[in-house]
Amino acid sequence: MSAHKDFVANNSQYAETFKEGDLPIPPSKKLLIVTCMDARIDAFSSLGLNLGEAHVVRNAGGRVQDAVRSIIISQRLLGTREIAVFHHTGCGMLTFATPQLRDIVKNSAAPEHATEIAQVIDQTNFLEFSDLEQSVKDDVKFLKENPLVLKDTVVTGWIYDVHDGKVKQVA
Amino acid sequence: MSAHKDFVANNSQYAETFKEGDLPIPPSKKLLIVTCMDARIDAFSSLGLNLGEAHVVRNAGGRVQDAVRSIIISQRLLGTREIAVFHHTGCGMLTFATPQLRDIVKNSAAPEHATEIAQVIDQTNFLEFSDLEQSVKDDVKFLKENPLVLKDTVVTGWIYDVHDGKVKQVA
Repeated sequence: MSAHKDFVANNSQYAETFKEGDLPIPPSKKLLIVTCMDARIDAFSSLGLNLGEAHVVRNAGGRVQDAVRSIIISQRLLGTREIAVFHHTGCGMLTFATPQLRDIVKNSAAPEHATEIAQVIDQTNFLEFSDLEQSVKDDVKFLKENPLVLKDTVVTGWIYDVHDGKVKQVA
Repeated sequence: MSAHKDFVANNSQYAETFKEGDLPIPPSKKLLIVTCMDARIDAFSSLGLNLGEAHVVRNAGGRVQDAVRSIIISQRLLGTREIAVFHHTGCGMLTFATPQLRDIVKNSAAPEHATEIAQVIDQTNFLEFSDLEQSVKDDVKFLKENPLVLKDTVVTGWIYDVHDGKVKQVA
């Protein structure tokens, strides 16, 4: 695995025409996007966003429970006041259950790490879901009810379709 | 705040020319990028990556400690075997300390949530850093030494410069 060996060459092309070097730190649209790490998602392009306009938090599933630290920093220090949560069709999070993944990790543990791994992994919730639309609604509810999130935050929930590139609001 | 009101119109332009509807779930380069949520970073474009090639995990600072759940899912269920960690110049994480942010959150808490908020926030490490290059090295070390990360994972560490769009390998 050596994808990183292409980074410098590819990046030098990008840097040649780079013109956005003076953008301020706070996102100009006061917007934070939470979306999945999925390789088929380009958060900026698919929403017509430009550099400098929005924070983008990405993790497995686009789960907000795993984004609270980032949301606090984004809101309290960098002024964002709107959160849009995106989950997507064909997500890997629809394909497994936490107990099963715990077993995969524990069963492949080197003997010298087995106890340590079991202790950590048995307390890890992988935040998978079985109902895509419901998972978005759950995450929007989580944010609206969370006292760590600023009270007047505008929170919306969306599904991105990886097959046709379209977004649909569901919350 | 209503940036979301433009999503559907902007997205319909994107969807009109969308041609990548048949990509498989596993990233074709078996690569996972960890980078910051910063609004000035376009992970795909700046590295010349195409849709479908890499998972992208983003959080405040691009800290790997906050990405372990996603990394396990990416490696064990979706086959990635390389991790590239990117932090960047001008990062908000260089501008504050955890105790200070804890105070900001606690001081603005509604009285009815004050106890609950204090309990959570006093246990939250915001993972800020004071030395950019060292923070990348620390994160690469964390991954290399973490038994939850697959043993033969290729891990590299990088700095992205938001002022000229260039990347530099530091670990």
